[in-house]
Amino acid sequence: MPDQPLIRRLDTRAADFAADLRRLLAFEAADDASIEQAVQAILADVRTRGDAAVLEYTGRFDRNPAADLAALKIPASEAAAALAALPAEQRDALQAAAARIRAYHEHQRAESWSYTEPDGTLLGQKITPLDRVGLYVPGGKAAYPSSLLMNAIPAKVAGVAEVVMVTPTPDGARNPIVLAAAAVAGVDQIWAIGGAQAVAALAYGTQSIAAVDKIVGPGNAYVAAAKRRVFGTVGIDMIAGPSEILVLCDGTTPPDWVAMDLFSQAEHDELAQSILLCPDAAYLDAVEASIEKLLPTMARADIIRASLSGRGALILVSDMPQACAIANDIAPEHLEISAEEPARWLELIRHAGAIFLGRYTSESLGDYCAGPNHVLPTSRTARFSSPLGVYDFQKRSSLIQVSSAGAQALGPLAATLAYGEGLDAHARSAEFRLADPAA
Amino acid sequence: MPDQPLIRRLDTRAADFAADLRRLLAFEAADDASIEQAVQAILADVRTRGDAAVLEYTGRFDRNPAADLAALKIPASEAAAALAALPAEQRDALQAAAARIRAYHEHQRAESWSYTEPDGTLLGQKITPLDRVGLYVPGGKAAYPSSLLMNAIPAKVAGVAEVVMVTPTPDGARNPIVLAAAAVAGVDQIWAIGGAQAVAALAYGTQSIAAVDKIVGPGNAYVAAAKRRVFGTVGIDMIAGPSEILVLCDGTTPPDWVAMDLFSQAEHDELAQSILLCPDAAYLDAVEASIEKLLPTMARADIIRASLSGRGALILVSDMPQACAIANDIAPEHLEISAEEPARWLELIRHAGAIFLGRYTSESLGDYCAGPNHVLPTSRTARFSSPLGVYDFQKRSSLIQVSSAGAQALGPLAATLAYGEGLDAHARSAEFRLADPAA
Repeated sequence: MPDQPLIRRLDTRAADFAADLRRLLAFEAADDASIEQAVQAILADVRTRGDAAVLEYTGRFDRNPAADLAALKIPASEAAAALAALPAEQRDALQAAAARIRAYHEHQRAESWSYTEPDGTLLGQKITPLDRVGLYVPGGKAAYPSSLLMNAIPAKVAGVAEVVMVTPTPDGARNPIVLAAAAVAGVDQIWAIGGAQAVAALAYGTQSIAAVDKIVGPGNAYVAAAKRRVFGTVGIDMIAGPSEILVLCDGTTPPDWVAMDLFSQAEHDELAQSILLCPDAAYLDAVEASIEKLLPTMARADIIRASLSGRGALILVSDMPQACAIANDIAPEHLEISAEEPARWLELIRHAGAIFLGRYTSESLGDYCAGPNHVLPTSRTARFSSPLGVYDFQKRSSLIQVSSAGAQALGPLAATLAYGEGLDAHARSAEFRLADPAA
Repeated sequence: MPDQPLIRRLDTRAADFAADLRRLLAFEAADDASIEQAVQAILADVRTRGDAAVLEYTGRFDRNPAADLAALKIPASEAAAALAALPAEQRDALQAAAARIRAYHEHQRAESWSYTEPDGTLLGQKITPLDRVGLYVPGGKAAYPSSLLMNAIPAKVAGVAEVVMVTPTPDGARNPIVLAAAAVAGVDQIWAIGGAQAVAALAYGTQSIAAVDKIVGPGNAYVAAAKRRVFGTVGIDMIAGPSEILVLCDGTTPPDWVAMDLFSQAEHDELAQSILLCPDAAYLDAVEASIEKLLPTMARADIIRASLSGRGALILVSDMPQACAIANDIAPEHLEISAEEPARWLELIRHAGAIFLGRYTSESLGDYCAGPNHVLPTSRTARFSSPLGVYDFQKRSSLIQVSSAGAQALGPLAATLAYGEGLDAHARSAEFRLADPAA
């Protein structure tokens, strides 16, 4: 198809580059009114009828009828058996990945702190884990055990007592590798339910399922719409857009490697976005040649081709600092700095979900087993948000213990400001502590 | 009004206590379709027409016509002059409160970290501030300078380069104490615009106002609806429900003090909620007597009366541990532990926005000047969320630098897991790094 390049080329020196880049990045999730309506009805129904509604929808949507919800509870022994039955290589890989993910996330655990002022007033912050977390795990083809590890392990590291997993089992088919991953991650409860009905059960609770405090994990459009709607009743993680990689390359990495890194993003989804920035036009030619050479050998060649031609780009930049400036504007989910001096360019980067440094750090190593989380902010949200982490499963309570002397010092300040805002109960409540009848 | 008690009494030993408590706590923000529609139209219009739309709405809603947006920019010199013109007592109180808020929030600033494994692989997390933050400050009667300090100071402590404030000035009237607080907090830009149009300008940017990365600060129903809708394009803080206080008292605090603490919440709003838990029935009688005695002396007696009779309660508990268990269920925004041994009960508390310990710690001292933030999770969201803090203005990027040796160790793991998920580009990208052509 000579009319349709495999991947578009842009040049930052072109007059219309800024507009072309905006167009390339533009993505707006479609609002689907029929999904919204269906989800609203399911949520209301589960909230009212509990177990009975969950059973009914599970029978209808998953073709998985059950006498009661207990029949949809997957026992821990089944997950343990699934793990034991895995081929040794796969079991070892899951366990080794989990150990590395756990070790990295241990570094994220926040601790309570406090300090005492000279007059005896204590100020601080108490850190506590969430009590119960719901984990949505998609069924069918999009069932990724690695994603289960990335969502469940930070919750357990945070100290969440109960991680409650829901996963649809269409036609009753349970996915053994997903169950094995649940056993490895230490998931506490597993229910064979999915869709908006599972989100509703987790958010509101039913006769059989206790309500959780937060729901995390990826899902289809119904699940995403349901999570958006229950937000406030429970916490939710981010709603992810299409996955993205931005590779900054100084031209020293083998072109095949970079081509495959672009593929590894593109193979997810036709809407996934793979972009390469490089100051060396000849290197871009070499990567394009690698793309042409390697593409026919890929299992998911059609998806990769659609993604690269629809949303991919090879962009010629004037130098690496310009590449870094563009990276900050894009705020990519995944940023590879595939260069001789990655630390030099890292200093210039302000916004990215995860940063992969040096030519040996393929994004895929990070996706599976380096240790950091692969649940990352998409669609430019790395400007203001962070990878999923232990901090998403801990929360803070401010601690204030004003001493008798402290109350004498702070009372007049508070009273002045409170009277200024017309809030006299605030002021008098502080003033009461000025005289000390209990002393 | 003998039929209408000033405040209801509950007893945990009553058969219907659990249901009564649920009813007491029930609050559901009304969805107003007309507000949603109006806001949707304003957002779309500002997104398309920029400055012109903002000017038009500001003329219409705030009765504040202007030739161009530059005329609605409030210069830093005006804020500085407003601060200089304040009565000394008020200026000193603002500055002292700001200094204490800043000192506390300095403790929250997170630092980047990394560690290197024996094979040279580096893992870590890079912390960066947001670039630009929008701060909504209500106009008119709900203009609270303390709230401006609580929102702006954590952003500046985080290192946000530009804090852009918007505040409506109905009929062109600018509030000098709000401008003074902006000067104290170090706000970088001030625009005399408000409502959904201001939220749109901050989220999308216009010819005159650069888009921000996150919008924080309280506002009316239009502002809340607008923030909800732009979420994703920018970050937002929480959308607050009615304010709440829960006081746990062992019966040793002067009853007048506790009565006034309950008032200090109730005076905000008829929907505000003030609840006292105590194991001593005689003490509850004493607090009720204090309420009756003090209420007529309050400037906002009508609001307090409506709030206490509509949503307040004095609850007799069997003991303090039971009080703590109820507190965890309520997960209150403000929790006072007004007791001889507050540390003993603190150990039992898992969920609360801010915890005020000991009889000298009135909530109002915390609201204004103790140091911790007064923007807190409401409506049971303290189960999964935290006070506004420096962490809301910083974000994290994962760092992964796999060494040549590390790639040999991790590559087979990643490849096994990737092939298991049917993602062969992921696998091959890791496998490419197994042989090292550059070595």
